Amino acid sequence: MSEAPHLTFDLDKPGVSTGHLVVPKGADCAALSLSVFSLNRGEGPRLLITGGNHGNELEGPIVARRLVGWLPRAQTCGRVIIVPEINPLAVQAWTRNTPIDGKNLNRVFPGRADGSVTERIADAISRLLLPIADTIFDLHSFGPGWDFPPTATTLPIADPDLMRKTFLMTEAFKLPLTLLWEHPEASGMMDVLAQSKGKVIVCVELGGGNVNSEALAIYEAGVRNALIALGLVEGKAEYPTFRRQRCSQTLQTRRSFDELKSPARGIFEPRCSVLDEVKEGDIIGMLHPWDSLSADAIPIRAPSASIVYAVRSGAYVDVNEEVAMVAHPLNRPLMEVVSHLIV
Amino acid sequence: MSEAPHLTFDLDKPGVSTGHLVVPKGADCAALSLSVFSLNRGEGPRLLITGGNHGNELEGPIVARRLVGWLPRAQTCGRVIIVPEINPLAVQAWTRNTPIDGKNLNRVFPGRADGSVTERIADAISRLLLPIADTIFDLHSFGPGWDFPPTATTLPIADPDLMRKTFLMTEAFKLPLTLLWEHPEASGMMDVLAQSKGKVIVCVELGGGNVNSEALAIYEAGVRNALIALGLVEGKAEYPTFRRQRCSQTLQTRRSFDELKSPARGIFEPRCSVLDEVKEGDIIGMLHPWDSLSADAIPIRAPSASIVYAVRSGAYVDVNEEVAMVAHPLNRPLMEVVSHLIV
Repeated sequence: MSEAPHLTFDLDKPGVSTGHLVVPKGADCAALSLSVFSLNRGEGPRLLITGGNHGNELEGPIVARRLVGWLPRAQTCGRVIIVPEINPLAVQAWTRNTPIDGKNLNRVFPGRADGSVTERIADAISRLLLPIADTIFDLHSFGPGWDFPPTATTLPIADPDLMRKTFLMTEAFKLPLTLLWEHPEASGMMDVLAQSKGKVIVCVELGGGNVNSEALAIYEAGVRNALIALGLVEGKAEYPTFRRQRCSQTLQTRRSFDELKSPARGIFEPRCSVLDEVKEGDIIGMLHPWDSLSADAIPIRAPSASIVYAVRSGAYVDVNEEVAMVAHPLNRPLMEVVSHLIV
Repeated sequence: MSEAPHLTFDLDKPGVSTGHLVVPKGADCAALSLSVFSLNRGEGPRLLITGGNHGNELEGPIVARRLVGWLPRAQTCGRVIIVPEINPLAVQAWTRNTPIDGKNLNRVFPGRADGSVTERIADAISRLLLPIADTIFDLHSFGPGWDFPPTATTLPIADPDLMRKTFLMTEAFKLPLTLLWEHPEASGMMDVLAQSKGKVIVCVELGGGNVNSEALAIYEAGVRNALIALGLVEGKAEYPTFRRQRCSQTLQTRRSFDELKSPARGIFEPRCSVLDEVKEGDIIGMLHPWDSLSADAIPIRAPSASIVYAVRSGAYVDVNEEVAMVAHPLNRPLMEVVSHLIV
């Protein structure tokens, strides 16, 4: 019988400590050691920051490691636990899913102690890290292949109190976009598990493909704003500059209405930018049919007045692949009764 | 015995025609049909434009297909042949190399008629398309994983006349960067084959990861500038706007001196942007050691006063992986005698 998941150090120790979360070995691979940082300044909020949930989204691991560098000088109270790469196998392989079992870590929570390696990672996090936090920041990005603005997101939550608390935390990042995201496949997400335990969880997203210094500066500013809002560090929260603007907008998606698909097999050409406002019929992109250079390119048009929040990178696409996503300004009174509207 | 590579239509036909270049079947896969566009306006330059040499560099295929759309209204003389995806297998798979045989198309020229599929593609292009062109634009990009400015590049060429002609053509793109690139592994490139036949070939590069509308506009403007310089279309060449500037600089690399490597295994964090001027000792990026959060991040510093032209995206890297490349202003008198300096 294999050992149970465990931490190699005492998270209750005051001040800075580092060590590992050990995910037991299984039939498919040896035990894993996930690097963990803990900074315990006593009473106050208990925050867990995770990165590297998907292995080709490196903004999170980098910003998490930058926090490890400066939090010891800045944190005044409470507890922060940071795990920069919760799926180190996927990070090393630069793949969304774990290469060994092909599973998406963010679809297998709460995991299984006797499952494949991705399920064992989820199990270790669910049992040893989530219980000690009241707030979680899961640092994602949209991964290569999409353009996406720096965004703090939350799923709709049935409990109106938790929805309100979560939404305020999401807006506290002051990122260019705050998104209430009716995600089409939320089952098995860490978000859903954390919310079922009454915890506030915010998922940070950012596009697209290239992890560069400008994008990292915006991402880190958003996380710092949220730490200030929690009272963990002192300072003044400020909107980061994105495309020469310092402001944020709050949007919501409507499941299954707001995804634009490729009308044919071919090369997708993006014709708009993220956060562009479009009218019904505006061209979002063009589809160049694959098999012939004599056929005309097919315009892909906005279905309604909306704001483009995700645009596929130029790429070969099959018919019916997603190429863009649009959203709408949040209806705030609607938001107040969101618990009655979601299933 | 399999059929020989052939075109399904007559390239000498006046005006617009489209069809395919057929790459014969082999033991590893069926015959391929590469879409080909031809616009014959009689006397004048004979230009071949190729894209999709590497399958995860989609700027080329998209710009090539945009040209197919507007060249018939714009081209006043000469001949242009466009093959938007010379490696359709890699484009469909979004991989640099051909998935079937794992080969890099741009390292197997002139190819082999009895080789694996990548070699058969190179053979078909070498035999049927290169001979009818006097100028070639091979539209690449730096692919996901790197930030790279919009750039027209040429390898150093031993023949001073061809070097001068090629260099003028390269600068005619008026892209933000013109680069004389001592590429460490040029053997088997289409460039080397074309140059050995006395042809002018320019390779366009651009970063990084996300193929978006802004990047495509710059790329297309560069190609249009080059078409104007060749006299194929009328109009005024203009520097495209990149990072709010409308200008170009010309740099050269020095083989093996100008590549910065990762000092350890870990997460690379970029700390500078492409086209940044750096002094000796300036920080280009940080390496966050993989195994421990208690070890300090290691700065990666500029070896000399130089200009950063390529920065690795934030990523997990092994020890000694390339993370940045720097270059130096072109020494123009040196350039005039380049044939004496290159081996």
